[in-house]
Amino acid sequence: MYFDFLCPYAWRGLELANVLRALPGDAGGETFRLRHFSLAQGNHPDNAAAKGAGDVRWWLSDQPQGEGAAHQQSSLDAFLAHTAAARQGEERSWAFALALFRRRHEHGQALDEAAIQGAAGDAGLDTAQFAADRQDDGGLRAALRRELEEAADLGVFGTPTFVLEDGGAAYYRFENLTRDPQTARAWWDLYRTVLDSGAGIATIKRARNRPAKKA
Amino acid sequence: MYFDFLCPYAWRGLELANVLRALPGDAGGETFRLRHFSLAQGNHPDNAAAKGAGDVRWWLSDQPQGEGAAHQQSSLDAFLAHTAAARQGEERSWAFALALFRRRHEHGQALDEAAIQGAAGDAGLDTAQFAADRQDDGGLRAALRRELEEAADLGVFGTPTFVLEDGGAAYYRFENLTRDPQTARAWWDLYRTVLDSGAGIATIKRARNRPAKKA
Repeated sequence: MYFDFLCPYAWRGLELANVLRALPGDAGGETFRLRHFSLAQGNHPDNAAAKGAGDVRWWLSDQPQGEGAAHQQSSLDAFLAHTAAARQGEERSWAFALALFRRRHEHGQALDEAAIQGAAGDAGLDTAQFAADRQDDGGLRAALRRELEEAADLGVFGTPTFVLEDGGAAYYRFENLTRDPQTARAWWDLYRTVLDSGAGIATIKRARNRPAKKA
Repeated sequence: MYFDFLCPYAWRGLELANVLRALPGDAGGETFRLRHFSLAQGNHPDNAAAKGAGDVRWWLSDQPQGEGAAHQQSSLDAFLAHTAAARQGEERSWAFALALFRRRHEHGQALDEAAIQGAAGDAGLDTAQFAADRQDDGGLRAALRRELEEAADLGVFGTPTFVLEDGGAAYYRFENLTRDPQTARAWWDLYRTVLDSGAGIATIKRARNRPAKKA
């Protein structure tokens, strides 16, 4: 699953995935891996013609610390912090990502160093280890770069995007939040049903002048 | 249902709608009305910032005969011809639209005057009446303009787009053709299920580097 901490749809997607991964396999459980996709990079004018990683001219992972637009800086900081948090294992990786998303999109906090530190606490990270891992700027950026390259080669354009077992990938944008297992399972099944349909569905997308239905 | 004769997805959408409208109401029949949306207008650089009809600067319906790019001319000619055909009634309107789509997208014919004349014959139009109605260039353009205005105000961006009972509209792009009633009903039900979902789904869209599944 590709996500960007900037994106409220990615937050709801991560909540959905988090519910599904907690279910037993015989109760509809699913396995997800967390991957970073940068909206700032994907939407950057220098990358407008990019069809894959070889065409990308502006990489978020190459932006110097403290330079660039605020959303570029905050998303880079958040990605690098999450990459550092993930060195403490898969469960801590999920806990930190969820905590940071919730601070930003559920509680309206800015995506900044205070949110990162708060999320580290929420997630129960070893804070000394986290601080030390965050110092490895080169290693963290290299790891981020690999994910951004993979996303570019898949043609990811928004978040959340899920990469499926068959290698295909599809964006899934929905307006409402669920943490209920049955509801989450139903919303995931509907997405999979669309992608598996014999119609060969490429896109279902609402016209912009009408909001999606609220629950 | 908004369509453009240029678009193969709109062709498949019209075939789907045509199957559904032939079903009795108690067997899943649906009613559709045919409306024109211009991809050349929607994608025109002068209209990039348009949020509604009031912002549209380039109107297909205002383009002089014989001017503009080939796809602009052919889509305008096809829309005006279909608008003229529709003066012979709803059944002739559908028959002409289907015939012209099939000539273009099923049989690979150019979208030109020969295709229009052929489709008029396929559809059993009164050819003298059709020729006379096509002379009413101002009236046909005015009717087209109203449809293009409505589409712009709805935020239609591609074809086929279906406007639903609740006033919302959504694009439905699929790769495969069906004329089978049960299959058509299933593909339509899936689309409606997505739009009616409590998730508030705004978009499901495949990443570009992988084709949609073929049946």
